[in-house]
Amino acid sequence: MVKFFEKDPYAPIQYVYDVDKVLYKAKSQYQEILVIENEYFGKILILDGVVQLTERDEFFYHEMLVHVVMHAHPEPKRVVVIGGGDGGAVREVLKHETVEKLYFVEIDNEVINTSKKFFPTVSSQIDSPKVEIKNMDGAEFIKNRKEEFDIVIVDSTDIIGFAKSLFTVEFFRSVKEALKEDGMFVTLSESLHFHKEMVVNVQETMKLVFPIVDLYTAPIATYAGNWWTFSAGSNKLPLRQMRRPCISPTRYYSEEIHSHAFLPEGLYERLMKKLDW
Amino acid sequence: MVKFFEKDPYAPIQYVYDVDKVLYKAKSQYQEILVIENEYFGKILILDGVVQLTERDEFFYHEMLVHVVMHAHPEPKRVVVIGGGDGGAVREVLKHETVEKLYFVEIDNEVINTSKKFFPTVSSQIDSPKVEIKNMDGAEFIKNRKEEFDIVIVDSTDIIGFAKSLFTVEFFRSVKEALKEDGMFVTLSESLHFHKEMVVNVQETMKLVFPIVDLYTAPIATYAGNWWTFSAGSNKLPLRQMRRPCISPTRYYSEEIHSHAFLPEGLYERLMKKLDW
Repeated sequence: MVKFFEKDPYAPIQYVYDVDKVLYKAKSQYQEILVIENEYFGKILILDGVVQLTERDEFFYHEMLVHVVMHAHPEPKRVVVIGGGDGGAVREVLKHETVEKLYFVEIDNEVINTSKKFFPTVSSQIDSPKVEIKNMDGAEFIKNRKEEFDIVIVDSTDIIGFAKSLFTVEFFRSVKEALKEDGMFVTLSESLHFHKEMVVNVQETMKLVFPIVDLYTAPIATYAGNWWTFSAGSNKLPLRQMRRPCISPTRYYSEEIHSHAFLPEGLYERLMKKLDW
Repeated sequence: MVKFFEKDPYAPIQYVYDVDKVLYKAKSQYQEILVIENEYFGKILILDGVVQLTERDEFFYHEMLVHVVMHAHPEPKRVVVIGGGDGGAVREVLKHETVEKLYFVEIDNEVINTSKKFFPTVSSQIDSPKVEIKNMDGAEFIKNRKEEFDIVIVDSTDIIGFAKSLFTVEFFRSVKEALKEDGMFVTLSESLHFHKEMVVNVQETMKLVFPIVDLYTAPIATYAGNWWTFSAGSNKLPLRQMRRPCISPTRYYSEEIHSHAFLPEGLYERLMKKLDW
């Protein structure tokens, strides 16, 4: 059996997948793209040696990335998704009928094309008339915009790679400026097991900018460390409260998961005080 | 760098660890015992090719295995730990000053000896005068006992191996008989990501015996699938409620984690109805 060895320099456990078939292998301007078939997970999308999604479990990540802020917002109409070239976040955003316009800002067009070809259930909404694709850097797109958007979602590769411009205080400031008064922002922020310092760093940096910052988690078996975090910021409205009924269908996200996913207060305090646990 | 490839036939992702040094390798009557040193995790105990504990993160598992039932019980005095030859569960149980007697039933004495030699912070309480070591099969120990114990804890290897006698309806019946009126039982029950059918099966089997059965989880990076479950049964008292203040010190378990760890109701219902998620 051919094996795929994940190449994540920040993961102290290396994950290895059986490869039933290599479906696609290419090098775009930005990264290496690999699609493999695995008996358990189905098709797997791999960028620069790191698993981005599997058909079997992508809904955990995409639902949790998108629906917490989308339900905390009273009426999200104008949404930006930065990264997420596979289209999974776009698919989830468009389950919300309030959405009128979605800017889909993916720097690497080849990821979009690969997903359309190999992951039709993930990329299904990319061609919706509500979606405007912008093939450009997310930080460039968001710069110098004033109160234009309700929600900004970052669905990038790991913080350490070329996505690092999406985790700077300058970027967060641009996002804050670009959001309307009720606006909300969410980004992946790595694993509480393997990248605790990164999680704290993202939270601290966001707190320099957003009046309200929070942290929630989801169990994701295919991301190193698995106890995966999402960092959310808001200009005015707290994020733990849902302001609209739960959209349907979802597979993991629900009203009870919305509040349950946020890190319990005491644990959050110990995290941010950098106490050992 | 030498690598250790975990050999877990039921894990669709294989975990690979760097080996700084092989500290010990032996074959007991029951299993292969391996101790390696890893830069990130410290010393790692491996039985039959499967990671049992690492110095860095063992507290997640041992605290969550032990403290939920120990705090749900009003006054645990007589406790049984089956398996857990490393002594981690014993260490946590003895943090409760109510405990007068702890039967430590480990079939493989070589695991105890290995832990005493290589994991002194884990095995620290094995020689406590409250502990009586029984080198025998856990199912045999518990059979034909009547209302003798307050708490029974199973800390075995995976369900699929020679520990499977600890997951039968006959064993659960013996445990129920062996517990006093307020008695409680807890066992590991594998991962919600990778072994969902096993989790459901353990829950269903326990429900044939115990009036109250519940399920809680903890994020454990070194167990395959990571979204790790514990199945608890009780003769009378609900398990979600703490009946004594939180002991100290703990690193992960706390009052808020006690209630937070239980699977949210809707998710639990979907799990038990075998609905897709």
